[in-house]
Amino acid sequence: MSLTSLPNSEDLKGQKIIISGGGIGGASGALALAQRGAEVTLYERAPEFKEVGAGLQIGPHGVKMLEKWGLKERVFAAGYLPKEMQFRDAITTETILTMDFGEEFKEHYGAPYLVIHRSDLLAILVEAAQEAGATLVNGIHVHDAVKDDEGVTVEIEHREGEDNSGKGKREFVRADLLVAFDGTHSAFRKKIAQDEPVPSAYVAYRGTSPLAEDEAMKDLNAVVGYIGPRCHFIQYPLRGGELLNQVAVFQSPRYLDSLVSGDEVPEDWGNNEEFKNAFDHTNEFIQSRLGRMWLNTWWQMADREPLQDWVVNDRIIVMGDAAHPPLQYLASGAVMAMEDSECLALYASQAAAQGELNWGEVLRDVSAERAPRCARIQTTGRFWGELWHVDGISRLIRNETFRAAEGTGWFKYADWLWDYDADRREYLKDPSKGDLPAELQEWEYNIHKISRQRDSKETDELTV
Amino acid sequence: MSLTSLPNSEDLKGQKIIISGGGIGGASGALALAQRGAEVTLYERAPEFKEVGAGLQIGPHGVKMLEKWGLKERVFAAGYLPKEMQFRDAITTETILTMDFGEEFKEHYGAPYLVIHRSDLLAILVEAAQEAGATLVNGIHVHDAVKDDEGVTVEIEHREGEDNSGKGKREFVRADLLVAFDGTHSAFRKKIAQDEPVPSAYVAYRGTSPLAEDEAMKDLNAVVGYIGPRCHFIQYPLRGGELLNQVAVFQSPRYLDSLVSGDEVPEDWGNNEEFKNAFDHTNEFIQSRLGRMWLNTWWQMADREPLQDWVVNDRIIVMGDAAHPPLQYLASGAVMAMEDSECLALYASQAAAQGELNWGEVLRDVSAERAPRCARIQTTGRFWGELWHVDGISRLIRNETFRAAEGTGWFKYADWLWDYDADRREYLKDPSKGDLPAELQEWEYNIHKISRQRDSKETDELTV
Repeated sequence: MSLTSLPNSEDLKGQKIIISGGGIGGASGALALAQRGAEVTLYERAPEFKEVGAGLQIGPHGVKMLEKWGLKERVFAAGYLPKEMQFRDAITTETILTMDFGEEFKEHYGAPYLVIHRSDLLAILVEAAQEAGATLVNGIHVHDAVKDDEGVTVEIEHREGEDNSGKGKREFVRADLLVAFDGTHSAFRKKIAQDEPVPSAYVAYRGTSPLAEDEAMKDLNAVVGYIGPRCHFIQYPLRGGELLNQVAVFQSPRYLDSLVSGDEVPEDWGNNEEFKNAFDHTNEFIQSRLGRMWLNTWWQMADREPLQDWVVNDRIIVMGDAAHPPLQYLASGAVMAMEDSECLALYASQAAAQGELNWGEVLRDVSAERAPRCARIQTTGRFWGELWHVDGISRLIRNETFRAAEGTGWFKYADWLWDYDADRREYLKDPSKGDLPAELQEWEYNIHKISRQRDSKETDELTV
Repeated sequence: MSLTSLPNSEDLKGQKIIISGGGIGGASGALALAQRGAEVTLYERAPEFKEVGAGLQIGPHGVKMLEKWGLKERVFAAGYLPKEMQFRDAITTETILTMDFGEEFKEHYGAPYLVIHRSDLLAILVEAAQEAGATLVNGIHVHDAVKDDEGVTVEIEHREGEDNSGKGKREFVRADLLVAFDGTHSAFRKKIAQDEPVPSAYVAYRGTSPLAEDEAMKDLNAVVGYIGPRCHFIQYPLRGGELLNQVAVFQSPRYLDSLVSGDEVPEDWGNNEEFKNAFDHTNEFIQSRLGRMWLNTWWQMADREPLQDWVVNDRIIVMGDAAHPPLQYLASGAVMAMEDSECLALYASQAAAQGELNWGEVLRDVSAERAPRCARIQTTGRFWGELWHVDGISRLIRNETFRAAEGTGWFKYADWLWDYDADRREYLKDPSKGDLPAELQEWEYNIHKISRQRDSKETDELTV
């Protein structure tokens, strides 16, 4: 066997690992670590394992990991393998780029492209983690943790009441390692970064509906993204073609106004009132589909600035959305968390197999590999979103760039994202791989630019 | 001999043709018509034939005509054949597209790419027109013309005084045809269109300087265009490499402000004060070159709306800048005028060779062929200029589109412009060839958009 430890080894036998958070990231972490023989306990605050949202796109970088963890059959059966991804102009509906997910794609990236319901993926990961020997516990919130020379003491709190909202009994648990997959409002990120989420001014509406009886859509076999000025609209099948997943995303004028003016942000930005007319400038086909979106929930989309170091200390690391909440444009939020899990389990088991498991060193290596990678995904996601939403002449140029990419081949744009293997340690060896490519380095995120311009105006006023 | 009459025929023998205007258009018209045997008199208001400006780019669509008229050796000797055209980003100087003007280019378009001093080209055309038998007269202004069943009576005015500015003796001259090449402020266009020039908000500074002693530039053998936010900068050699031609173009903030506000436009928009800092955001190389620009003259760049029909009546037609003044971005202003000349001479001689020379029919055919062609060049020129001048994310996308065009081949973007032959009558057969391609049809010229938004605001105010 090579240095590359495969799952289902005993390399981490005797290592006690606590995971905080039972979303896709935490569950995948429990699975990857348990498969290497670690004694994993996962604590989830909520009374049951569940995901909010609907469909989730998993690129080949994620599918490769699901296959490695032995879940190929389960996720393929629960999800859907789209034939291709079509980018269309949201005003004309013209297809400006088709990314074929056929044989050439699968050979190039080593795996197909998958879409799956978030709940289905979570259920599969939870089940598989349990099968691998991990203990997954609901109703327990990981409150804090303190490391010492021999491990970490984790303070947990038993949530009480029917909805687990009450404060409950506290308890201390010992472990060798704490992995904080505790989401974008992570308690452990606070120990290393005093930052806030960065709202993008965009809001998502989602909806699933039966596909078979949907005359206009019943032949859909692709991921279709209509990209348009200040909005986009995504459609793809789920659950073997049973369900239609739709996502409608638009820029909230009220959020933008408050960002520009510096006035207080309305809490309900992106509400139904704003949704009502947000797609009036797009093709009537898109408008005809919006009746199927859920109206009771909407997602105000935000990310955070990239974090350069995820290591809280030698025994605690943040991962998943706690470390790198992205915008959704590269469909890599869940995949990054899975990559984090696999990278941690892999590097730890490799170190253990060499007889040198020093968690501090492992965490530093994992962070050095993963942080630049995720920074690039976060930053590129911001750029990619802006590219989707341009208007006027920029939109026409964008469309031509997409058409040209179909001609010259688009793999060159996607390889950095989809052709990844933590075992190559490429970011660890060359952290500059986390930067945007030279052609994009002068680009400034529009949200940054607006804030900068507003702040410089405020400074002007102060100095007058 | 085929229907395609070659120059130096006698097809138009006995036809008396007056041309108003002795610029490149009028001189080429005199040449093309005289070469078909017509009795041509050209009147130029100024006391001598001269061109303002400096270098002129002649694409293969123009060079083909110069060759057809027998001027190949003269223009090649007077001008310069650049090796290639380089588009560079004005901020980084990165070359984003190189258009090779070598063998493949010459074979594809049937002629090379030429740059030549405007004065040199005009002198060659004037000399050749005279050699072909045309009479070219300075100091006479074509004032008006009235057609009757048998021809046209042209009212000319002898300019007086040393600078020919005074009003002088009027005289009536008879002809079979009057061709008005009398420029963008044409007296004859007024008979068919009540429009005004449309300023682009961009202003050009020009300059020529000796190339041999210019250390930084002495190896220049290409047309190089640095394109940047709200400005661009062009360099190429002239006169066999003796002279360096430079053009610095930028958007005038003062013009733009007055366009947005509706306030009075300052007459000197684009003046030296504005020029001084207009390139501060570009690469220091460009800034280091601006000391060689002439400061005493600047060109406020404007075009006009495309004109659908150039026929004033059966005996009078407008051509050249009188019919279709363009922005300069496609370097086709002079070439369009030459195409007009050749088209008129060709269609007339073909009709005459068939024994059916009816000037009304010829003019209608010429206009039906030429007007859509020139409309497309005018409109595409506006678009092309905007594409050069975009900022922010649009600039990064534009750069990628240019890089992609180098990969996929850029002929497809240029064929409509550079692969033209009036003898194919392609626009006459299908006037829709004059439209922008489908991908660009929703594009709105920024100057139109600003005017529209200003006007709608004014209307709002009125209705409040």
